Amino acid sequence: MSKALDIHRKLKGKIEIRPKIKVSKRNLGLIYTPGVVEVTREIANNPEKSYEYTGRGNNVAIITDGSRTLGVGNTVPEASLPVMEGKAMFLKLLAGVDAYPLCLNTKSKEEILRTIEILSPNFGAFNLEDTLAPKSLEIMEELRQKDFIVFHDDEQGVAIVVLASLLNALKVVGKKLGKIKICVAGAGAAGYGIFKILNYAGVKNMIFFDAKGIIFKGREGDNKYLKEIAKGTNFGNLRGAKIEAILGADVFIGVSGVGNLLKSSDIKLMAEKPIIFAISNPNPEVLPEEIEKIAKEYIFASGSSNFKNQINNIIVFPGVFRGLLDYRKKMDLALELKIAESIAFLVKQPKKNKIIPNPFDKRLVKTITLCIKNFC
Amino acid sequence: MSKALDIHRKLKGKIEIRPKIKVSKRNLGLIYTPGVVEVTREIANNPEKSYEYTGRGNNVAIITDGSRTLGVGNTVPEASLPVMEGKAMFLKLLAGVDAYPLCLNTKSKEEILRTIEILSPNFGAFNLEDTLAPKSLEIMEELRQKDFIVFHDDEQGVAIVVLASLLNALKVVGKKLGKIKICVAGAGAAGYGIFKILNYAGVKNMIFFDAKGIIFKGREGDNKYLKEIAKGTNFGNLRGAKIEAILGADVFIGVSGVGNLLKSSDIKLMAEKPIIFAISNPNPEVLPEEIEKIAKEYIFASGSSNFKNQINNIIVFPGVFRGLLDYRKKMDLALELKIAESIAFLVKQPKKNKIIPNPFDKRLVKTITLCIKNFC
Repeated sequence: MSKALDIHRKLKGKIEIRPKIKVSKRNLGLIYTPGVVEVTREIANNPEKSYEYTGRGNNVAIITDGSRTLGVGNTVPEASLPVMEGKAMFLKLLAGVDAYPLCLNTKSKEEILRTIEILSPNFGAFNLEDTLAPKSLEIMEELRQKDFIVFHDDEQGVAIVVLASLLNALKVVGKKLGKIKICVAGAGAAGYGIFKILNYAGVKNMIFFDAKGIIFKGREGDNKYLKEIAKGTNFGNLRGAKIEAILGADVFIGVSGVGNLLKSSDIKLMAEKPIIFAISNPNPEVLPEEIEKIAKEYIFASGSSNFKNQINNIIVFPGVFRGLLDYRKKMDLALELKIAESIAFLVKQPKKNKIIPNPFDKRLVKTITLCIKNFC
Repeated sequence: MSKALDIHRKLKGKIEIRPKIKVSKRNLGLIYTPGVVEVTREIANNPEKSYEYTGRGNNVAIITDGSRTLGVGNTVPEASLPVMEGKAMFLKLLAGVDAYPLCLNTKSKEEILRTIEILSPNFGAFNLEDTLAPKSLEIMEELRQKDFIVFHDDEQGVAIVVLASLLNALKVVGKKLGKIKICVAGAGAAGYGIFKILNYAGVKNMIFFDAKGIIFKGREGDNKYLKEIAKGTNFGNLRGAKIEAILGADVFIGVSGVGNLLKSSDIKLMAEKPIIFAISNPNPEVLPEEIEKIAKEYIFASGSSNFKNQINNIIVFPGVFRGLLDYRKKMDLALELKIAESIAFLVKQPKKNKIIPNPFDKRLVKTITLCIKNFC
């Protein structure tokens, strides 16, 4: 048995529920019946008091339907559990947030939305996770309209950490955000999030491609999110696929889910000092070996902890939820940008192998929380 | 501010989520990406493996819609949160079970049932709680048919602890189960559960009354559960209310939710050496002072920790969930009876003020778990 399976089998779950107070016969009547009745009455009179007298204000639900499970794709919700437990573990460890993994046994958008509404009394915020786009993006749109505090880790979390990494990588290679060409592989939730934040941040020249090839205005069968990408990218109205898209790009961002998508011959087509973010998990779009064959000066980052420069939303989501819970604010693009800039700024002297703080950097949660606090 | 409110405000929740493993850069790749992918693949191939590699097999969802919240009644789901957190706290403390309080923002039976189905991938068992009868009883019937492992604390938990207490109380006063008359006030989930277990255990003479008076065959407007009670009790076809019901009773069991329902003049109508279980919370149906005015020899028990003989389902539910999770068995009346007898047996020499073990008695969980293990 592999080491990863073995460790999971021994643990039988990476998180547990723990009482926050020592219970004795002396305080039993205060925290349980009859004393607890005073609390139920206070909350019944004003449900907002649930934030004051219960864990609600520190509770996040991590919701998935298992339709985009790490390493598997569209599968049974149970398969997402070990990933969700991992997120919950990090939320507590890094930000003191109590997160409940809830893998839902439905693939229906309407049922997922309704379940979130039904579960809302227990939570201060929701995280949507590992759910197939465009369904996940549609769910997010509706939740925002319904006044929930929500975060879409795969979309917004990835977008923030990509922009933070990009800002520092550009400093290292001496290029400017407004003048570079970026090629993005993949246009699911992560791709859409990256498009939105880069567009907002001032990137002018982007080309996206997916399994159907380069995204262009009027491409058939595209959903409204792909159409939005088409409208804001590929102004030369280029057609083709990987080769045509990557040609002359300063930056490649891989969120395709396809391991080994790029060969050294593809990297060769990029501009000088290429920046390559191969962040698909578990298999990156390209490995550093392939790049080294071609380029001397380059920047490589991946989503895995096996390499330097880990571009993973773990850098973002703990601080984001700490801040969203503490200040009961909502996320938008302006706040995403501010958080990305603040994260980038934590690396005082960006270098080839140090463009982003490591996930355990204690300043991350504080910095992100402060952004949210000061954001109007 | 009261002490109970104060302690809840300081705690902000009685439970928290804790990682079960120390996370470092060294094991990050095993418990998170990329290692966790091996686990998601195993479970995707066989969802049953979620019991092996995640916390599912130790996870219980505590479900309520807040329609019968302690001390308030039918109210917003948020108000039930402090009670559910208390249950979760005890489940961990006494039985090592990880319980997730989930107060649902719907009062619809169909939606509650569907939500439980949707949440099922995360849990080994479900506890239904603080939900109004007959809805709660209908939900339980459907869940049992659907092959879920479920327990209805307010119905089955109360029934088990009542029978356990009664067995010992009868030893103290020297009466026999088959020969006594029992008067029960209240015919909600608890009353129905008590009817079922006492009937199964061999009690012949029972009278139930509720807000509409004594329950009899053919009473108008009764639901199917009340009709079932009518069919198995009141064989003299008595009419009337409290006075007529309690007359000559050896045992009074109060699950009415009505504090101070009985006066000393009512107790006076009971048989010699009366047994009074005034277990409604937060206010018992009668206080010991009222009984002492009338009877020298009597047994009093309540649901509160403020008196001796606490008849509270806290004695039962931790062990029950430990056993149901460990052996993946289902609860039925025969098992309920066996558990009640085993709990009673833990009190070697029952006395007036010691008919039931205290909730912190470490033998409880072991004993109940063993019952479930050995039960076929």
